[in-house]
Amino acid sequence: MKIFRTAREMRAWSRAQRAAGKSIGFVPTMGALHEGHASLMRAASERDDVSVISIFVNPAQFAPNEDLDQYPRTWAADLALAERTGIDAIYAPTASGMYARDYSTFVLVGGVSEGLCGASRPHFFRGVATVVTKLFNAVEPDHAYFGLKDAQQCAVIQRMVRDLDMGTEIVPMPLIREEDGLALSSRNKYLSPEERKRALCISRSLFEARAMLEAGERDAAVIKEAVRDGMSPTDIDYVEVVDAASMRPVDEIRGPVFVAVAANVGVTRLIDNILFEPESPKS
Amino acid sequence: MKIFRTAREMRAWSRAQRAAGKSIGFVPTMGALHEGHASLMRAASERDDVSVISIFVNPAQFAPNEDLDQYPRTWAADLALAERTGIDAIYAPTASGMYARDYSTFVLVGGVSEGLCGASRPHFFRGVATVVTKLFNAVEPDHAYFGLKDAQQCAVIQRMVRDLDMGTEIVPMPLIREEDGLALSSRNKYLSPEERKRALCISRSLFEARAMLEAGERDAAVIKEAVRDGMSPTDIDYVEVVDAASMRPVDEIRGPVFVAVAANVGVTRLIDNILFEPESPKS
Repeated sequence: MKIFRTAREMRAWSRAQRAAGKSIGFVPTMGALHEGHASLMRAASERDDVSVISIFVNPAQFAPNEDLDQYPRTWAADLALAERTGIDAIYAPTASGMYARDYSTFVLVGGVSEGLCGASRPHFFRGVATVVTKLFNAVEPDHAYFGLKDAQQCAVIQRMVRDLDMGTEIVPMPLIREEDGLALSSRNKYLSPEERKRALCISRSLFEARAMLEAGERDAAVIKEAVRDGMSPTDIDYVEVVDAASMRPVDEIRGPVFVAVAANVGVTRLIDNILFEPESPKS
Repeated sequence: MKIFRTAREMRAWSRAQRAAGKSIGFVPTMGALHEGHASLMRAASERDDVSVISIFVNPAQFAPNEDLDQYPRTWAADLALAERTGIDAIYAPTASGMYARDYSTFVLVGGVSEGLCGASRPHFFRGVATVVTKLFNAVEPDHAYFGLKDAQQCAVIQRMVRDLDMGTEIVPMPLIREEDGLALSSRNKYLSPEERKRALCISRSLFEARAMLEAGERDAAVIKEAVRDGMSPTDIDYVEVVDAASMRPVDEIRGPVFVAVAANVGVTRLIDNILFEPESPKS
């Protein structure tokens, strides 16, 4: 497994692969890899000829009051997981290599980045869109695999790729949960045993929402009310029902939607969602 | 010579060239090609294995009160010039293909884009950086040739390429003038014979500035004063002496600078500049 520290080295390797006729699969990560990442990494290594992950805790997507310094770093375990899942190369640039002192270029994605996490974390998606652009430019992947745990992030990146005519296809992949329902997240490491237990009300509430939707409920307000009630043991940031493409709130559920939530459990911010696709009225 | 209308077709061709081991040279243009463009096109076709130009009048870099609709379109002549200069492919997307109705992604380059034309035309460099990103993503060039007539644009694109780790090398090329000194511009077509004559005071003032600099003048205020005086027959937008890398105004000339000007002659906005590199104090 190769490890590259600069965009120049990374791109030279990628171009050599492409010149040899190989497709490149890519999974951008901030490290602290868990089974959710592993599912993306396995997809990349199985579906593409060669596979790359990036490990970079991106300062540009953290606000000053957020957990940049505390964000978990588990380099040795990440490397071992990458080996195990058949990854061919790791791109692990340094913060100073990524952001020169006079760095001044940002990618802004409007529309889909507003609301939800974009409302609570105003610079978040600017940081995400910018770093993903940089990573794509270094890796030049054919396919990039993103987990639907970060559904809005996935929508923002898909919009960016479409708008900027990027030559990378985004492959959204299912959210992965613990057996008890908790959505996998690197930030779950922050939870105390008591908080870990309390956090389960988040997925439970979403499963209840899914049951209501499957039973025919189409009023977003009713769904949101039920989810809010179920999540009351947490400090709720948002509970929304949004169109799965535009990420805009809907009142009545007629097409694919995410029921998306964010909440603080203790000092730990968690997000989760379910995707619901009503059967087509035409079928 | 191939003509492509969509990013997908353009990229497929470019990737086939690269797979065949060929380097790709690229000249982005808005058409209405003149000898300035021709110098870039000849450089691309001589230095790279295959060469591409884009012809696209980019709505995103025009303000509502500017000359988008009047901007000269000379498709047949442009094609003939491209053939003559040895261009292999033209990328000529449509405005609706480039900007979907819900288009919402922009590339913002801070610092170098402020001041000069960025001050007079606030959305201009946002539009330029965004469209060049899109064109680069479609063409995937090894080298892109930009004329120093648009010195600030060149600095903005170089900064963007550096910041976003783009895999394209920017090649700045000298400004080209008419025999009488007028800097070549597609907008020169707007000038009446009287205005054409009056516009000559712009280049004449810059040549005077160069003579002063070569004679040892290092005070930017003195240079600007002389240029302003010389340009008085026009409606001056700005006269600045800026650091050639950062595009920030300087008071004392110690390193490479542009003396950069913009002025309206009648309703036509013209820009011009000279590059001056003082001999290194070490030599």
